[in-house]
Amino acid sequence: MLNFRCPEWTGIACQTCPWKAIVNVFADRLHFLQTSLQRVLMLPFKRQATTPHTPKSDKKSSTTSISIDPVQGTRDFPPDEMRVRNYLFDAFRSTAKSFCFEEYDAPVVEHEALYVRKGGDEITKQMYSFTTRHGHKLCLRPEMTPSLARLVLGKGKALSLPVKWFSIPQCWRYEDITRGRRREHYQWNMDILGVKGVAAEAELIAAVCTALQKLDLSEKEIVVKVSSRKILQHLLVLSGVQSDDFAKVCIVIDKFDKYPREEIWTMLDELGVSDYAIENIFRAMLVTNLDQMESLLQAVQSGADNPDTTTADISSALQEVKDLFGMLRAYGMADWVEFDASIVRGLTYYTGVVFEVVDRERKFRAICGGGRYDGLFATYGSNLAIPACGFGFGDCVIHEILREKKRLPALQRTIDDVVIPFDESMRPAAIEVVALLRSKGRTADIIMHTKKVGQSFAYADKNGAERAVFVAPDEWAAESVRVKYLRKTEADVESKGPSKDKGESMKICDL
Amino acid sequence: MLNFRCPEWTGIACQTCPWKAIVNVFADRLHFLQTSLQRVLMLPFKRQATTPHTPKSDKKSSTTSISIDPVQGTRDFPPDEMRVRNYLFDAFRSTAKSFCFEEYDAPVVEHEALYVRKGGDEITKQMYSFTTRHGHKLCLRPEMTPSLARLVLGKGKALSLPVKWFSIPQCWRYEDITRGRRREHYQWNMDILGVKGVAAEAELIAAVCTALQKLDLSEKEIVVKVSSRKILQHLLVLSGVQSDDFAKVCIVIDKFDKYPREEIWTMLDELGVSDYAIENIFRAMLVTNLDQMESLLQAVQSGADNPDTTTADISSALQEVKDLFGMLRAYGMADWVEFDASIVRGLTYYTGVVFEVVDRERKFRAICGGGRYDGLFATYGSNLAIPACGFGFGDCVIHEILREKKRLPALQRTIDDVVIPFDESMRPAAIEVVALLRSKGRTADIIMHTKKVGQSFAYADKNGAERAVFVAPDEWAAESVRVKYLRKTEADVESKGPSKDKGESMKICDL
Repeated sequence: MLNFRCPEWTGIACQTCPWKAIVNVFADRLHFLQTSLQRVLMLPFKRQATTPHTPKSDKKSSTTSISIDPVQGTRDFPPDEMRVRNYLFDAFRSTAKSFCFEEYDAPVVEHEALYVRKGGDEITKQMYSFTTRHGHKLCLRPEMTPSLARLVLGKGKALSLPVKWFSIPQCWRYEDITRGRRREHYQWNMDILGVKGVAAEAELIAAVCTALQKLDLSEKEIVVKVSSRKILQHLLVLSGVQSDDFAKVCIVIDKFDKYPREEIWTMLDELGVSDYAIENIFRAMLVTNLDQMESLLQAVQSGADNPDTTTADISSALQEVKDLFGMLRAYGMADWVEFDASIVRGLTYYTGVVFEVVDRERKFRAICGGGRYDGLFATYGSNLAIPACGFGFGDCVIHEILREKKRLPALQRTIDDVVIPFDESMRPAAIEVVALLRSKGRTADIIMHTKKVGQSFAYADKNGAERAVFVAPDEWAAESVRVKYLRKTEADVESKGPSKDKGESMKICDL
Repeated sequence: MLNFRCPEWTGIACQTCPWKAIVNVFADRLHFLQTSLQRVLMLPFKRQATTPHTPKSDKKSSTTSISIDPVQGTRDFPPDEMRVRNYLFDAFRSTAKSFCFEEYDAPVVEHEALYVRKGGDEITKQMYSFTTRHGHKLCLRPEMTPSLARLVLGKGKALSLPVKWFSIPQCWRYEDITRGRRREHYQWNMDILGVKGVAAEAELIAAVCTALQKLDLSEKEIVVKVSSRKILQHLLVLSGVQSDDFAKVCIVIDKFDKYPREEIWTMLDELGVSDYAIENIFRAMLVTNLDQMESLLQAVQSGADNPDTTTADISSALQEVKDLFGMLRAYGMADWVEFDASIVRGLTYYTGVVFEVVDRERKFRAICGGGRYDGLFATYGSNLAIPACGFGFGDCVIHEILREKKRLPALQRTIDDVVIPFDESMRPAAIEVVALLRSKGRTADIIMHTKKVGQSFAYADKNGAERAVFVAPDEWAAESVRVKYLRKTEADVESKGPSKDKGESMKICDL
């Protein structure tokens, strides 16, 4: 037991002091902990003695130079790259705002278990996983939808549906074999929860088209290919494929464009899909309008022995897609969308309409993909089946397309004013000026170490300043500064003639 | 630090209560012991984790329900929390823009080696580290400055100094023992590279004060405490401390407020600091103005046997801080700043002016910390010594302060219009209306499954819509819709009387 004595012991006064009681509690705990600690400290010390010597880590810790490269497969964003990223994100954000989606976010680190699911899609095979010192299996999130589901389930009944949420998370993957592919990208996610009908899909697709328009792309260059897993499922069931195999079959069909037909055939065959069903799948892959699809389904249905699927079911699945196209016509986006039965998307959890945005020339990978995933919340243990659909729109492919088509604006740095003190004695005055300009809402910089005046003007010009504001003793005494406009348009120059070298005198209050 | 509150808290009386000091000593020791105890208790558990058979984890992987909690120590941002985060970030961003800082970013994953440095500050001891499948030692970045250094060194000579860069990265730490402390926070970083003089520090501190003003805080509540490691270094050198030990001594001094004096004494003693030097350090900790500091330095200098430090050096270090205060006066921020020699900051790399922003009541941890780190680029292998200074301003403490002082604005969701179709047959018309409103720059939502009209109006009201726009067959035939204003001010209501239940008819072209 430790003996603590109040340094200003005053006898009676301390009897009523409330701190005394707390100190006694502390003293007891402290004693207990010290005893426990001494007891357990014996064990690890013995064990540590047997650990081998590790000179390598000693060596590393004394190294002084660092790699200037980012971690493999990741990107740095110095200001010039950041301006491009912000340009893209602004298009995403302003579209989301215009469409009344609310922004949310979740930690980039999630439990690995969140992504474990049957069917084995690519995302769950390429996780950026790691184990913490405490043995927890975590990963850098490969996609945002499971985090969204987690947040929504966490809100429970406090959340009144429908909701429209968006986010621009950085998503990660880790491939065993690297071939110049990146391990991270930012992905604009938009999701609508609580809406059963395709009005939700229409709203999402209209938002994608709006963002593409903001990015100066048109329906002549980009197309939204739409299909429905329900239609495909009817075809498969009518062809004798078991419902349980559907998700796995979709993963194979998603690779249709990337592998030769024979390999696709082999993969489907290995899943136990009959030759007849494979033939029907191959026929469907060529279908690019709804009427053809209807004919194909009718043909297969008439040949089916014991159909589980009624004509009404088929009509309903087809009608859904027809309704979606009708709504997109009302949005003014009819020319952006096409039916394409080969679109299935590579995620196991989609259940209804699926869509994929690609460049019409097919020079690039998909820009964006999405669809309906009504079953996901149930697989995560939700009592309520929450209807849901959404899309993910990555920042890499769109960036490549905009660069290739030269649609990125200049995105040069621009600022309003650069304030230049005549010399160090004028710094306080220059600071007053820059503070005044900022308080007026202007973006204003100040030269922070006195250079030759010419260098300071060059700095202002190089950094895209509209005006250089020169603070010199004589003018300052007259409550004035010298202002030079650095970005005069040709029209200005013609009308007013070339500006004088050192600009014009201006009262501080008029700045 | 544990927070114990006197059960009969009486304010002023308790300030002088001698028991309080004792309780603090107890609290510190108790925490230290608890920490040590839990640390050694981990060992047997760790060993269990490596045992080969893990039936429990098998069970986990096949389970279908997920944890709705985020990973330990991390935060989710559902829309209501996201609005608060965006409110803070907007204050940071608009200040940075007004001060002409350029935004940059870097991957959240970095090489662990980037943070290895001598001196052992807290940051490098609590890294969120992991090893990849390929054996690379990575971590979730604990701070942004090393990434900034990496980007700047990567740019090399292409970058013309000075530069002013900012970022709002999420930074991570991993403590062995959790006690409700978070493992991530967002930290607004602002850095100026290439400026030797304190004009850079002045610009940074002015930016911090401006952001605090934007967040509705004043110099009556918040103070920027400023000191200089150069001044402290002169004091230490004059007292006989070796220059090489300076960084380590600073780490101990940074703990001055958190540990009892005797423990600080012991820690310094263990670093080989003489009793005389420790006495001088303790004296300096009480100094809160520059004149006192000057007197102390003169007294120590006069007593030094063989001083390495000239009077000119000392004057120059003091003058620097005086200049900084003069500049901050010109910025109009004089009342925000105070000299406080006890400020040293816990990072090893600071070399000059250091500052810390705290609430004047000292109820919270530091809001923001920063300083000059002229030596960092050289330690990273740069040929050029790049003068640099910057600060980090976390999102957690400021959030606590704003919440406690009730300074957060309401931040309710607001949208301009909610378009309500009379029934499904009117959906195409309603879609045309919502698309029109959006094209006019309004934020517009649409009811996505037909409910009773009353429910739709309630949805519009609950989501903060300014207007509900009702699209019904008869009016639509006359190119009109019915508009109801949901957010009429009291003045509006008085002047015009209460609006009719179903709003007013309006031509589509006038919407």
